[in-house]
Amino acid sequence: MSAVRGNVVVTGITRADRSAVDGLAELGVSTVHEAQGRTHLLDPALRPVFRGARVAGTAVTVSLPPGDNWMVHVAVEQCTEGDVLVIAPTSPTQAAYIGDLLATSLAARGVRGVVVDGGCRDVRELTEMGFPVWSRHVSAFGCIKETLGSVNVGVTCAGQWIEPGDVVVADDDGVVVVPRDRAADVLAAARAREQRETAIRERYRSGELGLDMNSMRGPLEAKGLVYVEQEPPR
Amino acid sequence: MSAVRGNVVVTGITRADRSAVDGLAELGVSTVHEAQGRTHLLDPALRPVFRGARVAGTAVTVSLPPGDNWMVHVAVEQCTEGDVLVIAPTSPTQAAYIGDLLATSLAARGVRGVVVDGGCRDVRELTEMGFPVWSRHVSAFGCIKETLGSVNVGVTCAGQWIEPGDVVVADDDGVVVVPRDRAADVLAAARAREQRETAIRERYRSGELGLDMNSMRGPLEAKGLVYVEQEPPR
Amino acid sequence: MSAVRGNVVVTGITRADRSAVDGLAELGVSTVHEAQGRTHLLDPALRPVFRGARVAGTAVTVSLPPGDNWMVHVAVEQCTEGDVLVIAPTSPTQAAYIGDLLATSLAARGVRGVVVDGGCRDVRELTEMGFPVWSRHVSAFGCIKETLGSVNVGVTCAGQWIEPGDVVVADDDGVVVVPRDRAADVLAAARAREQRETAIRERYRSGELGLDMNSMRGPLEAKGLVYVEQEPPR
Amino acid sequence: MSAVRGNVVVTGITRADRSAVDGLAELGVSTVHEAQGRTHLLDPALRPVFRGARVAGTAVTVSLPPGDNWMVHVAVEQCTEGDVLVIAPTSPTQAAYIGDLLATSLAARGVRGVVVDGGCRDVRELTEMGFPVWSRHVSAFGCIKETLGSVNVGVTCAGQWIEPGDVVVADDDGVVVVPRDRAADVLAAARAREQRETAIRERYRSGELGLDMNSMRGPLEAKGLVYVEQEPPR
Amino acid sequence: MSAVRGNVVVTGITRADRSAVDGLAELGVSTVHEAQGRTHLLDPALRPVFRGARVAGTAVTVSLPPGDNWMVHVAVEQCTEGDVLVIAPTSPTQAAYIGDLLATSLAARGVRGVVVDGGCRDVRELTEMGFPVWSRHVSAFGCIKETLGSVNVGVTCAGQWIEPGDVVVADDDGVVVVPRDRAADVLAAARAREQRETAIRERYRSGELGLDMNSMRGPLEAKGLVYVEQEPPR
Amino acid sequence: MSAVRGNVVVTGITRADRSAVDGLAELGVSTVHEAQGRTHLLDPALRPVFRGARVAGTAVTVSLPPGDNWMVHVAVEQCTEGDVLVIAPTSPTQAAYIGDLLATSLAARGVRGVVVDGGCRDVRELTEMGFPVWSRHVSAFGCIKETLGSVNVGVTCAGQWIEPGDVVVADDDGVVVVPRDRAADVLAAARAREQRETAIRERYRSGELGLDMNSMRGPLEAKGLVYVEQEPPR
Repeated sequence: MSAVRGNVVVTGITRADRSAVDGLAELGVSTVHEAQGRTHLLDPALRPVFRGARVAGTAVTVSLPPGDNWMVHVAVEQCTEGDVLVIAPTSPTQAAYIGDLLATSLAARGVRGVVVDGGCRDVRELTEMGFPVWSRHVSAFGCIKETLGSVNVGVTCAGQWIEPGDVVVADDDGVVVVPRDRAADVLAAARAREQRETAIRERYRSGELGLDMNSMRGPLEAKGLVYVEQEPPR
Repeated sequence: MSAVRGNVVVTGITRADRSAVDGLAELGVSTVHEAQGRTHLLDPALRPVFRGARVAGTAVTVSLPPGDNWMVHVAVEQCTEGDVLVIAPTSPTQAAYIGDLLATSLAARGVRGVVVDGGCRDVRELTEMGFPVWSRHVSAFGCIKETLGSVNVGVTCAGQWIEPGDVVVADDDGVVVVPRDRAADVLAAARAREQRETAIRERYRSGELGLDMNSMRGPLEAKGLVYVEQEPPR
Repeated sequence: MSAVRGNVVVTGITRADRSAVDGLAELGVSTVHEAQGRTHLLDPALRPVFRGARVAGTAVTVSLPPGDNWMVHVAVEQCTEGDVLVIAPTSPTQAAYIGDLLATSLAARGVRGVVVDGGCRDVRELTEMGFPVWSRHVSAFGCIKETLGSVNVGVTCAGQWIEPGDVVVADDDGVVVVPRDRAADVLAAARAREQRETAIRERYRSGELGLDMNSMRGPLEAKGLVYVEQEPPR
Repeated sequence: MSAVRGNVVVTGITRADRSAVDGLAELGVSTVHEAQGRTHLLDPALRPVFRGARVAGTAVTVSLPPGDNWMVHVAVEQCTEGDVLVIAPTSPTQAAYIGDLLATSLAARGVRGVVVDGGCRDVRELTEMGFPVWSRHVSAFGCIKETLGSVNVGVTCAGQWIEPGDVVVADDDGVVVVPRDRAADVLAAARAREQRETAIRERYRSGELGLDMNSMRGPLEAKGLVYVEQEPPR
Repeated sequence: MSAVRGNVVVTGITRADRSAVDGLAELGVSTVHEAQGRTHLLDPALRPVFRGARVAGTAVTVSLPPGDNWMVHVAVEQCTEGDVLVIAPTSPTQAAYIGDLLATSLAARGVRGVVVDGGCRDVRELTEMGFPVWSRHVSAFGCIKETLGSVNVGVTCAGQWIEPGDVVVADDDGVVVVPRDRAADVLAAARAREQRETAIRERYRSGELGLDMNSMRGPLEAKGLVYVEQEPPR
Repeated sequence: MSAVRGNVVVTGITRADRSAVDGLAELGVSTVHEAQGRTHLLDPALRPVFRGARVAGTAVTVSLPPGDNWMVHVAVEQCTEGDVLVIAPTSPTQAAYIGDLLATSLAARGVRGVVVDGGCRDVRELTEMGFPVWSRHVSAFGCIKETLGSVNVGVTCAGQWIEPGDVVVADDDGVVVVPRDRAADVLAAARAREQRETAIRERYRSGELGLDMNSMRGPLEAKGLVYVEQEPPR
């Protein structure tokens, strides 16, 4: 599917497999990002409004104008348990697309979090609710409800293309998207990576060096690295 | 009153009514901002140095040069119980206008917090004291004390005009100012809004949709919104 | 010593005196920065990945290319108990030079923290470990391992020149460097300042004003400051 | 087509119709952007390295790592007369992906310009050549050639999804993309808009007001706009 | 006058004296800014869309919502020969409030330029027209026309308070505002400064040093400045 | 030499060889930067106040406080024909350290340009004079003259360490520094690079591809690059 045309709400979307989604949630953004070849990472300027959350969910996407969140109300109805709502304004804006009221509505439907390339407000209430949002801005400035957009079309959000039903993984390191039909493969690769890292972590903890574990000394020397003793201080 | 002229300290300022101030403190920035027609919100780049504080107080204002906080000492004397100190440099600067020493002096006078369109330091000590500051920067770089400014004149701070005695409301969502003689009206409007929101929150929590509560379906269709079933994945 | 030439690892560096380092750790960035004449403060854009840490250590420095952390593995071997690793890319980058694996390796060697003018990832894991990192960015985007750099040469990191063995002090206010052979002097000056501040804090707490404690009223008047009574509100 | 998988060069791409492309070049970014419903505008942070160019061409796309332009050499071969090269790093970077040498190679193939969500260098030489580049940064820092990417796959560049063969229009106002199969429709709409604007411009020039031409006075009054005489100055 | 209330258009505003305005236009922003005590300088992030213009005019002000320029049409009617239109959104936005059509309408009324704390488009056409605009952004993204604001009320624009009828001076150095009733005084002070600078410039050109012209050597030595011969290079 | 201590003016500095300096001026920033291994490039945020200048000169350095340019007057006296003045504030600031008056004084001494990690003003006059300045900001806000700094000590300016007498090369691509005693070697390497590039440019112009000239096809295939024909459009 290519770009947005007209204003549509696509219903009955195909979502990534739930067990793959839940598996990805345990692994976190950095591991998943590596496991799929360092692609699909959203702009690091998106930050969580509170620390410590780690979620994965299936994307319900919204494309809408700057400063106007009318379509978010439309999108809520398309959300179901296990989703993450992805809000993608068509132009940069600091306006708050999401606050505690919409979060309450989303939470009631089992939505796991929101990713918005714009503003968020009611940070204290969201923190108390434990409903996680990743946003570019925190701003009390609200949205109007005048102009249409589209729900469940492919969107670019914070620099990445996201299609409805893709997996969105988010934690303190940021947000990464896994294309729907790659979820199982990426999960397998991420788990393998996690296992390798657990072993490495143990060796690091015991004092072993990356230089030795990865046999780097030869290649470093071959490239010309030289060790010299520091001259005694004057 | 128009712009600053000469270097003056205005004494005996008229402050907003205390009960209105205290009422606004309970409602928070986003609600107050909406209640006064989405005006008077300071630049969202001002952030609290720690999370969870929510205060309102009457503004004591300082206009001063970049990197010079001599006039803050003058302003402290003008502060009394229930005030918020508003520090407005005449040009962008990252220098720290406020740290734990001045905060101690302000706290001793009953000041509720500081808003500064510049830097703040001693973040750990301020957090331990529970003395809230909203600033554009955190920086250890201190100020000199060479050049005059003015206290309790109208200032622009982080993009908004603030007069002495106005109400400053600040929390995790940012900072908003309420003109002194509008405090009671804004409080009434904000309380009404809060009540409406409490009712809405309850309905959202029970699963009702904004689309239905706000009768949006008709207007959306009238503007041309179309629902389509997703094609089955290839 | 002037600029970097070729790719070298300097071994056997002279480190600042440990007791001076430990003394500086107690005083914090803002006090140390003042005590050495407001110099050597790193760009305030470097922020801690979690709040509340306050450390000082001797610098092991790494100069390396944007997006490539091969030399960090080389640097780990040069670190010992009480060091802080300083990572200085030669060009701006958001890539993560440090995550929980390298942090584990560094912690195993007694390293007290990392300062990086680039990205950091695994924020949740670092927080759980209590291993502090000050970075310009948080990003899951990892580094490649292709190009050499140098270890324990003088580097500019976030706007300041740092030589191996210098003292790096870091806390919630940012990061400051103390040249190795000035550590004792700066410590003495910082302690003296801390003592003065403790006395001032006590007087502020009891309600005394900075205006009086610092005899500012005369100089302010001499420069032309005028006090005027506010006109009654219309 | 969904996201990038593996490292591929797609050959024999279908390009937008040349006459539509050339028509769009005459109209400019702002008109084209309006004509397709205010969508597909790249981040305004992309700026031309010199003023006054206005081009349109068919996109040859490159997805590649931060700081590595090896794939640009691969992409050059895929370019032909009338193309615009679109360079989309997978992560934010300031590195220069394009300079006067690659520009010479591209110009020799009839390429009309380059859009890069990263850095550009040799600004003086590009200006002398009259070869236009739109970039996020100007930086002398070059790229390495170590890691693969893909050519002629869908990419997100500066916040917009671009597919190979789409039309890229760029001028002093920025960069907009027109999906390949919408080029003719958008051209027609843009021409119609241009004609309307020419008429409006003439009426404005003669002193007519937008208020009257657009019959705004009634709606403004209905919304509550009030005209008041200024009080005489005190 | 304090803050905006309701949506009003204030007519019949008192403008600064024309001859003072024209005098200020010749002197430029930096000189005027100095002449009024380094106050009232707008945020340097406002930049001219083309170089070389230097204008002064009387402010017609507009306060309006982010992304909505309906009120600009209302403001045009309030403009007359010698004015500068000042556009102040209530919240940060990149949307283009002004392009070549509105510029044509303003030029037809004798308006000398526009200052906007938001976006501008049609840069090429504005350059060809020679109609100067100072803006924070260049963006093709247009505004909607849905929500009211106010014309000729006091506004904060790019960090400074501007009242209708004040003098706005703008050139390649930025934008400064001179309060209406201070225009004559500031002009006199600016002319005096200009004369002094002309004399200084002549002496500098002939090789005289600022150190001597300003008798700085004594004060520098008194503060502790020391001259030392460089050690011969090793 | 390590960090700044006390406030000193170092006289009689050793400057890089004039013929090497003049040779570097012809080659430009990007070529010189490559020729010394992609090191010593100042932050790309420093931009020329007008386009088209290309200079090289020997550094006279100034370390001074934010917003205070007293020491620039001291530095002027230390400048001689062929120098470039490097102004390095100790903390971020937008204040203008240089305008047309100081530029006149510097030009009278044969100084070739100024590099300042802060603000610049009088852009129009500097452009008319043809006196080039590279700065981080353009701002009319001037400096005070209250606090000492040092002249001709090592400084970090815009992220790079610069010692007095080093070569500063600056053009539209930015600013790079060449350590004094490497000037001849870097010049030789840069000339060799320039020659190679001239040859490459000619071959590119004639249509030859980088893929072939650099024998990249084999390595690309070995890394796994695959060519596929695009499917016909649906």
